[in-house]
Amino acid sequence: MSATNVALAVITPEDLLKRWQGHRGLTRRVIEAFPEKELFEFSLGGMRTFAGLALEVSGIATGIDGLAYGKWQPWEEIMAKEATIKTKAELLAFWDEITEKINREWPAMTVERFNVTENSWGFYQGPVISILNYFIDNEIHHRGQGYVYLRTLGIEPPAFYEH
Amino acid sequence: MSATNVALAVITPEDLLKRWQGHRGLTRRVIEAFPEKELFEFSLGGMRTFAGLALEVSGIATGIDGLAYGKWQPWEEIMAKEATIKTKAELLAFWDEITEKINREWPAMTVERFNVTENSWGFYQGPVISILNYFIDNEIHHRGQGYVYLRTLGIEPPAFYEH
Repeated sequence: MSATNVALAVITPEDLLKRWQGHRGLTRRVIEAFPEKELFEFSLGGMRTFAGLALEVSGIATGIDGLAYGKWQPWEEIMAKEATIKTKAELLAFWDEITEKINREWPAMTVERFNVTENSWGFYQGPVISILNYFIDNEIHHRGQGYVYLRTLGIEPPAFYEH
Repeated sequence: MSATNVALAVITPEDLLKRWQGHRGLTRRVIEAFPEKELFEFSLGGMRTFAGLALEVSGIATGIDGLAYGKWQPWEEIMAKEATIKTKAELLAFWDEITEKINREWPAMTVERFNVTENSWGFYQGPVISILNYFIDNEIHHRGQGYVYLRTLGIEPPAFYEH
């Protein structure tokens, strides 16, 4: 793309990295806001704990290898690794590993790559941009649920608009 | 942009309309899933009712005039209009009006327009694309909270991935 057309893009790969990592930073602060015990034990309406929701979100984020290279690690393997995570410190360390991995692999996320069709764990087939949007939407959705858990526990969550 | 460059765009204005309206369609189904009384009376953790959250989301969506033309109706006026909405049928009718308005105004949402800087109600200043992303993120966030309300009420919410 010429410089002119780059300037006219609605959204660039760099914007998308900033957007995703911005959301991941906020979700990390929501994890931190939970007391250790409630993170792994509290829930409402028969739903998963916030640790459970955050592990789903972090497992999905390991899909950066799928987005960037079409390598989708079997979901069962990701879940098996995550089943070993039992403390807030371990969850945050896993979270931070993925954050660094996303930054490291991002150069592979070219405009062309965003237009390639992938199948994310057999769940959804579409262009990489749609899969990434789904990853981010799913994170916002579950994080919003964490806000209700925190409020119900009498804990003030981090401001939504501070990424 | 040439045909080649359009094909190489990460995301197009048409994609964004489909994305926003897809989310709005799902949120509408979440509103519908609430019994009338609980929609306006039930909440958790001292939060707003789901009607309250949905009215915030729909008020923000009237900002299509801001996104498209830089016309930001004063927030107090929007809130005053919304204060008259007292039933699920009225809320859904208001929702549908905005859905149609967004479709009607979308031709003004050109690639150039997405790059223009706007100030949304003095709350956030940035390019139109960032403001729209915030609108959508805020909707997903509050809708996720509605899922917790529904589950706590023993009601199965619509599937998250069905837009």
